Amino acid sequence: MSKRVMLTVAYDGTHYHGWQIQPNVPTIEGILNRNLSEMLGEPIEVIGASRTDAGVHSLGNIAVFDTNARIPAEKISYALNQRLPEDIKIRKSEEVAADFHPRKVESRKTYEYRIWHDTFPMPTERLDSYFVYTPLNIEAMKKATRYLEGEHDFTSFCSVGTEVESKVRTIYQLEVLTEEQETGNQGLNGKAQTKDAVDQKQITGGMIRIRVTGNGFLYNMVRILAGTLLEVGKELYPPEHVREMIEAHDREAAGPTVPAHGLTMISYQIC
Amino acid sequence: MSKRVMLTVAYDGTHYHGWQIQPNVPTIEGILNRNLSEMLGEPIEVIGASRTDAGVHSLGNIAVFDTNARIPAEKISYALNQRLPEDIKIRKSEEVAADFHPRKVESRKTYEYRIWHDTFPMPTERLDSYFVYTPLNIEAMKKATRYLEGEHDFTSFCSVGTEVESKVRTIYQLEVLTEEQETGNQGLNGKAQTKDAVDQKQITGGMIRIRVTGNGFLYNMVRILAGTLLEVGKELYPPEHVREMIEAHDREAAGPTVPAHGLTMISYQIC
Repeated sequence: MSKRVMLTVAYDGTHYHGWQIQPNVPTIEGILNRNLSEMLGEPIEVIGASRTDAGVHSLGNIAVFDTNARIPAEKISYALNQRLPEDIKIRKSEEVAADFHPRKVESRKTYEYRIWHDTFPMPTERLDSYFVYTPLNIEAMKKATRYLEGEHDFTSFCSVGTEVESKVRTIYQLEVLTEEQETGNQGLNGKAQTKDAVDQKQITGGMIRIRVTGNGFLYNMVRILAGTLLEVGKELYPPEHVREMIEAHDREAAGPTVPAHGLTMISYQIC
Repeated sequence: MSKRVMLTVAYDGTHYHGWQIQPNVPTIEGILNRNLSEMLGEPIEVIGASRTDAGVHSLGNIAVFDTNARIPAEKISYALNQRLPEDIKIRKSEEVAADFHPRKVESRKTYEYRIWHDTFPMPTERLDSYFVYTPLNIEAMKKATRYLEGEHDFTSFCSVGTEVESKVRTIYQLEVLTEEQETGNQGLNGKAQTKDAVDQKQITGGMIRIRVTGNGFLYNMVRILAGTLLEVGKELYPPEHVREMIEAHDREAAGPTVPAHGLTMISYQIC
């Protein structure tokens, strides 16, 4: 008696060539297929919700597969995690309807693009954030998000050559979140110990999170949204210009695709 | 004309045998000495504020050294960061008084011990948090912090064999901070797609941060404080028992030393 099982999969994508299986290189899908096949004693091929690129991370991607094995679906997470490397772990396993397909059902996905904004890079943040040292107008970035939220044809925010029926997607929410950084030698300046009164604000960095929830994302769309918001932050053009970028339906109109390692898939929800 | 320079140093300690220089293995101090000596053309030996253990991270440790080089102190950060590996970066460099010694001045240090508390480990958090899956009584942990704050003889919270004049230290603040976790396939359960109504609370984990600020810490003290608070969280003994542990002046009385990789030095401040 076959059943369909859904895995919620978290991974650090640093050492993988992305989700999608490819010959001779490690991929998330490849590691899951091999370990599930060995564990369940039958050939398993998972279907992923999001085929993340090389270097992209996830707190909760979805993998679905069918099995004839007797092991209860909710026990698969425990058994599989014993075999998986420490940079890929199953957060949950559960049985789903036999016709459930994670890319053919209406869903909401949330992604986060993290930017370490400071004079210098931060070692402990280097694997899952993009380092930017140029001044950024955060208020302008926040203002630009308003033009991107809602239903639009996102052709300008999609890699050239992407073949999909429609490039219309809905962004439910797009936020630019900032955190104050807490570190360094605060309180040292202005004291007798420092010879020169170095400006206390010399260490001023912190993490900027671009968080987006939508009904689906085109190829490289989140990284192009982040690259565009960064250009607004650098005041290369005003926030309102983003509206024209959308209307251009031309990849050349929008900002650059920023590096993959700043991107994390946060969650997948069925609508 | 010699000057004394202070560096604020951030590092991911994963690949180092701690701060203190040792033959034949990579250490933070060793990397700083070698790169500063090569760059400035004279032998440099830094003095650190905190000799962190192997695997411990820092957002702002302090390294002080004297140099005859003409480069302005505040430019050293830029030049040195060009040479340093990506897991060690200088956040700031500045000139300090010729007699400034980071361990001989009254200071406040803040450390954070991070615990990933969930059914399974989280790949993206694995390098700087300790994974705990057992249930924890967070309120009991918070209550126990009250007995540890203040001035105490912390002999029970210090590795045996530590040679220091006094084991009296002051903890200005000790907090147990929790964050709700945001991930997974929320909203999926209870929908038609799931065959079984799996409890929504199956994914319930998150990060617990034990944050402590004091005038100094004995060898392994923060890791023993964290290990003790975890035993309180596991309800092995009530929060009040921590008072007896302190009074015992015996390392055997307190909880275990939890692993180094959960620990991060957050900041150093002159009082």
